[in-house]
Formats: sequence, C-alpha cells, structure tokens
Amino acid sequence: MLNIKDNLLNFNLKNEIENKKSQINLFIEDCLKRKEDKNDWLGWLNLHEDEQSFQEIKEYSKEIVESKKFDNLVILGIGGSALGPKAIIQALKHPLWNELSSEKRQGFLKIYFIDNVDPDWTNSILNHLDIKRTLFCTITKSGGTAETTSVFLWARDMLIKELGDNWKKNLVLITDPKKGTLRAFADRENVKSFKIESSVGGRFSVFSAVGMLPAALCGIDIDKFKKALAISYKDIFEKKNLDNLGLKLAIALFHADKNLGKKTNILMPYSSHLEKIADWYVQLVAESLGKNRQTGPLPVKAVGATDQHSQLQLFAEGPLDKIVFFIKINNFKNDFNIPKQEVIGFENLAGETLKRLIHAEGEGTARALAKKEVPSLTIEMPEISEENLAELLYGFEIMTALSGFLYNVDPFNQPGVELSKKYTYALLGKKGFEEYLKELV
Amino acid sequence: MLNIKDNLLNFNLKNEIENKKSQINLFIEDCLKRKEDKNDWLGWLNLHEDEQSFQEIKEYSKEIVESKKFDNLVILGIGGSALGPKAIIQALKHPLWNELSSEKRQGFLKIYFIDNVDPDWTNSILNHLDIKRTLFCTITKSGGTAETTSVFLWARDMLIKELGDNWKKNLVLITDPKKGTLRAFADRENVKSFKIESSVGGRFSVFSAVGMLPAALCGIDIDKFKKALAISYKDIFEKKNLDNLGLKLAIALFHADKNLGKKTNILMPYSSHLEKIADWYVQLVAESLGKNRQTGPLPVKAVGATDQHSQLQLFAEGPLDKIVFFIKINNFKNDFNIPKQEVIGFENLAGETLKRLIHAEGEGTARALAKKEVPSLTIEMPEISEENLAELLYGFEIMTALSGFLYNVDPFNQPGVELSKKYTYALLGKKGFEEYLKELV
Repeated sequence: MLNIKDNLLNFNLKNEIENKKSQINLFIEDCLKRKEDKNDWLGWLNLHEDEQSFQEIKEYSKEIVESKKFDNLVILGIGGSALGPKAIIQALKHPLWNELSSEKRQGFLKIYFIDNVDPDWTNSILNHLDIKRTLFCTITKSGGTAETTSVFLWARDMLIKELGDNWKKNLVLITDPKKGTLRAFADRENVKSFKIESSVGGRFSVFSAVGMLPAALCGIDIDKFKKALAISYKDIFEKKNLDNLGLKLAIALFHADKNLGKKTNILMPYSSHLEKIADWYVQLVAESLGKNRQTGPLPVKAVGATDQHSQLQLFAEGPLDKIVFFIKINNFKNDFNIPKQEVIGFENLAGETLKRLIHAEGEGTARALAKKEVPSLTIEMPEISEENLAELLYGFEIMTALSGFLYNVDPFNQPGVELSKKYTYALLGKKGFEEYLKELV
Repeated sequence: MLNIKDNLLNFNLKNEIENKKSQINLFIEDCLKRKEDKNDWLGWLNLHEDEQSFQEIKEYSKEIVESKKFDNLVILGIGGSALGPKAIIQALKHPLWNELSSEKRQGFLKIYFIDNVDPDWTNSILNHLDIKRTLFCTITKSGGTAETTSVFLWARDMLIKELGDNWKKNLVLITDPKKGTLRAFADRENVKSFKIESSVGGRFSVFSAVGMLPAALCGIDIDKFKKALAISYKDIFEKKNLDNLGLKLAIALFHADKNLGKKTNILMPYSSHLEKIADWYVQLVAESLGKNRQTGPLPVKAVGATDQHSQLQLFAEGPLDKIVFFIKINNFKNDFNIPKQEVIGFENLAGETLKRLIHAEGEGTARALAKKEVPSLTIEMPEISEENLAELLYGFEIMTALSGFLYNVDPFNQPGVELSKKYTYALLGKKGFEEYLKELV
C-alpha cells in the first residue's frame, strides 16, 4: 500500500480526517447508493468487477499480437481518451519503447497518440507509419467528438486506399455500448469494438477499455490492475478505512484550499516515468472541480528533480498560495555508482548513487519548502508497478470525487466547455448554430 | 512580424502601453546601459551579434555530420539547458524525428534529452543507444549542476568502456568560458567546448550555443534565428517601437495580474509543435518573476485544441483569476479535406478541413472565454519557421525582463532554489553542510 508522509505545517491531517468523518461516511454511502445507476456517473467504481471486459480485452490483444500482422497501435482520442493510456504506458514501459526492435518488445505493439487536430503533426505521423501494419484504436465515448472523428476519417481514408475492402481489420473502436455515431458505425460496418459504459466519464475511464486495451496491446498484465483496484475498493467501501490514500488526499486538498487559501495544487513526482500521470491528474482535478466560479484548485504539473530548475523558485518564494503533493519512488530497478574521486573537480558527488541523489533532492526540496512555509505531503510508492499505479490513480479518482462532495459541486460534468464547441460549429457555418453565430458577429 | 489580436475585456492594451511609456523607455535605457557589463545579466541581448559563436557552431556541426561517425546526440542538461533546445527541435522537426531513417534525416543526428536523475529512465536511454555512435553534449553553465554532472559521469564511464582513449571524441561541452569545474575539465582534458557567457542566465540562453548547437546538429539553419533576433532587437532598442510583441505582452501580463487580479497566466498554443515552447515559457516566467512572496503570476501550459478536453472547464468556470495567451498558426503546410457525407453519421464535419477546424476551435474558445469574462489575447504567427520562432521566444524574454522591471524584482536571479540544494547536500552527508543537517534533524 502507498503511504503518505507529510510536511503540512499548519494542519494535522489525522485530526482533519477525524473532523470530516461523518461527511466521508456520507460520501461513501452516496457512492454505494449511486454506483449501480446506469444513468448516473459512478460506474467507474464497478470497473474492477467487470471480468468479462478484462477477459475480452486480453483475448483480443493476444489474437492481435499473435497474428504478427501489426507493428503499430495508433490511439485516436482526446482528453480522457488519451491521457489515461499515455500515463500507463509511460509509467510502465521503456522510455524509448517505439524505438525498440520487435524482439525487445516481445512482439507487442509500438504506440502513438494523435490527440489534436494539428494538420502538420497529424500528417507527419500518419505518413510515417506503414498503414498496413497499423491498428487504429479510435476512442470517443460520445462517438461524436469533433477532433477524434475528423482524424478518424483521415485514417479511414488512408486504410481504404491501402487495404481496399480489408480496411476494417485495422480498426478497433472504444465507445458507448448503445448510443452515438461511432457505436452505430461499429454495428453497421461490423467493426471490432469495446465499450465505455455511459456511467463512466472520460476522466474516470482509465481502468476501462480506454486504458486497458492499449496497455494489453503493449504487453502489460492488466489483471494486476484489476486485483489492486479490488483491494482499494474494499478498503474504502467495505472496510471504511479512513487511513486510505484517496480519502487522505481529498482532505488535504480541500482543507488546504478552502481553509488555508492554498489554491494552487502541485503534483510533483520524482520520476520521469510518472510525468504523464501528472498530465492525467491535471485533467482530473481541473475538469472535475473547476466549477461555479467559486471552486477549483489550480492543478499544476511538475517533475522532480527537473523542475527544481524551472518552477521551484516560484513555489518557494512566490505567493504563499500553494500546496505540493510529491511522489517518491522508494526502489528503482537500476542505479549508477558515481566513481570515487576519479574525475578531478567532481569530488562533491564522488561515491554517491543516482538513487541516493534523487531521494536527497526530493527530501531536501520538501524540507526547504517547509522552511519557507509551503506545505507539502509525499506519497511514498515502494516501486513503479501495475499494482501501485492502480492504487495511485484510483486514489486520485477517490480524492477528486470526495473533494467534489465536500465542495458541493458535481465532479462529473463539464458544462463550461460547451459554449466553446457551439461557437466552433457556428464559426464553421453549421446548421443549427445560427443563434450563436449572431452573438459572434 | 507577429501580431496580437485581443479579447482583453476590461482593459485597452494600447492605452495601457501609452500609460507605461515612460517606464518602458526607462527599461530600454536600463538594458542598453547594462548589456555590455560582463558582471551583469543582460548578455542575452548581445547573442545575435556574436557572429563568431554562430560560425563556430556551424563549422563544428558540419564537421560532425559530414564525418558520418554519429547517429545520436544526447543532451545532458537540466532547466534552461534542456528546455530551450527541446522547444526548438519540437517546433521545427518531424514529430517522430528519432524514428526517421538517416536518409530522411539527411544525415543529421537523432536527439535525446536526459534532464533528470531518475536512475531507471537514464539507464534505459543510455543502454539503448550505440554509445560509439553517440555524441554527448553536456550543458551546465556553472559547470557544477549536480544532476547534470552525475549523469555526465555515468556517460563518461560508458564512453571509456566502449572507446578507451578515444572517449573524448564523443563529447562536447557547453559551459562558462572561464569559470567552473566543467570549464577546467574541458581545458585540462582538451575536450571540444562552446561557451555560455556568465552574463547569460540559463533561462535566457536559448539563442546561445545551448539552443543553437543542438539545432544545427539536427539540421536547422541557425543563421535564420540570428537575423530575426537582430530585427527584433532593432525594433525595441533602436526604433523604440512600442508596437512590439514583447513590450505588449509585458504590459498585458503585468496589468492583468497587478491591477485586475489575473494571477494565473495560461500559454495555450493551438499547435502540437509548440507544446514544449510552453514548458520553456513556464520556466522563464516562474523562475524570473516568482519572487519576494508578493509577485509571481502562475504560468500554466495548455495545448489547443487538446486541452479543451482537459483544463478548459477550469479556465471557463473556475475562479476568475486567469488570463490566456493563445498562439495561432495562420498557415499549416498540410491539410486534410474531410470527405463530403461519405460516412453516415459524421455529416457535421463533412466538407471541412483540419485547418479550418483547428482555427474555428481556437477562435471559438477565445470568444467563449470572453463571454465568461475571461480575458485573452492571441499571438498570430504566419507559420512555424525559424524566424517566427526567434521573434516569439525573444518576445517572451523581453516580456519577462520588462515585467520584472515593472514588478521591481530582479528577473535574473533564483535565490529560492538554493536552500533545497543545501539541504540535499546536507542529507547526503557532505562536508560544509553540517549546519544545514542540524536544521533537518
């Protein structure tokens, strides 16, 4: 299990949790009441129980990999449809995965993400790949996300040109099981597809097919996620253990913001492998809690030790409105012993190891911030593994859901992004958006 | 030249510039007075005049590339020593540059960055590369940055194992021309090196060898940067033209923060190629202006259209403390025409192009934010080119320097990061840090 060590300064996390005990219990009851409702948004709490989906994903992935017909997996998706799989792959795979030989990848697929509508960027990626040996995984829950479907139509065009009638074999879709354009397309064209239940929001979808299918196609054992999720679920919703990662993070985030004015929440893993976890976290917190003009801690991504040379100055001596969540990896798989006094001038590092250095930097930074009155806590992870990653991401999801409950906002909607979409369609001259165009002229 | 289009709502940029005219002129005089002082921090204003350095970089790069002895360039550097070259390469090169064949790269080098002390990440990269065909470029201005030198010693170890006495041939250094451990090492061991003048701070070093050498080794015409910088310089410091990108951005940033309470400053390019420009920008603003507890707008990176599905909800409906700087690329080199009504269900995008879509999304988002009382401005770039990139980055540097002048803080120091370094050495048990260790126990 992941531990928290804290330098919270003006508040005692244990006491605050005790103070919020009844609200936490109400939250737990609320979740349990709502989680089976298909028209609600708590479906992400059931994902680890969906044996069938995990099984289907494993079987399909095995078939794809064993067919030896594919080298590349391209994820077409944006927001929650890209951030989750990106985070998992970066955490668990080689940093230069796509440059490894098929042998070193053990036949698993290279992975590319197209999560924008930049025509140059998209063109460069699509034209680099051997389309015949590329599996396109299109992910859009609603089935109609403009960015994803437009690039999907581009990719489909290329597939038809290269493969003729066989174009569907290089396509797999992840979308709502019943509704939407992409679901209708999958049914009509008989294209392989997986589901995201309508009760699972995009930013809470990482343990559905959205995150699990790309992971399995890259050779990650997804059952390990499932088992770890079951343990975390049980800890909160059956044991009602208040000494739980997600619950503690929620209280720290909420109390620091609401009562101590710490409106900026920095997530700073001391690990290059966890950088994209922070991107995923930024979406989760920003889109869930940035509501009603009143609430919305500003989530900020930083990476240790790297950002000691970029953002740390601001954290240490800028406005006192920040709280930092560090992540420490206790055990790395590799290390380097800096030779003793071999190189003149570099004696101050002689005899150290890289692991000791990154640990001392993390601890030194937390302590220096405390000295400068900036509170922080450190999530201690024994090592980067599927299980620990599942506990971490699930902890952040629980943190976000409980924070929404405490702030009294709906963490599962995103009404603020709709107007931008309407104006976009109006500017493109689409039918049905004439009233918005009037506002713009 | 780059234009600004604005949705600033409650303030008129032109008027504010007029109001600040005398202060801007004082700033210009101050820069001109200080820029030749080798003990000051304005040396970055002279970089475009340093013909000799540009010439040496071009000659060395030509020699390296024509020797055909190298496939890979590895940058060992952190903070300003990595963010600048990363931003330039991403902006101007193929998104999958390192996966292109040598032929497609026209013999120029692949490029990798190691800007952390994560032992696993570093080990994976170093062990993937053919060390014999790898040029290690070590960048540390002071010559003693712990993160960079420790990884440098690792790389040096590998080079000696692979190449024996010839290890120096795979090494190039960028550091202070006179001071520091790395300079002494370069002189003693006779290793090829380039300079960063002591009057050029790391975050203002992108147009020194720090950014220009990696650019040249990847096939970028660095003279184009030099010419564009000369034009920008002349515009501000000779013509004293107030209608200048950097000056306008400074007034917008400062006024929005200081007088309108917009403490969060979002940089959101609508281009995947400019994502790392935003990382570079975050360091520039955070480390320069996060000072004295009082000042420090919080710089936030976002990418359009991607972050419409991540952070936009918070920008639109969270606390009203934000201003957004968009970047729009007017012309892309490629485009895709979405087929007219070919695919049932996707008719709403039929007949569009990706370029029209990304433009409408940028405009739609700026207008939707304005409707929700969130001010923004859009920097319009005719296309991504060396010249426009130089003008943009230089504009941000001027913005930062002038903002520091207006806030009355020193934008060129970073005193807040020192304590963390001292605690790190204390925790490692180093001599000379005993008093800090006492504080920690």
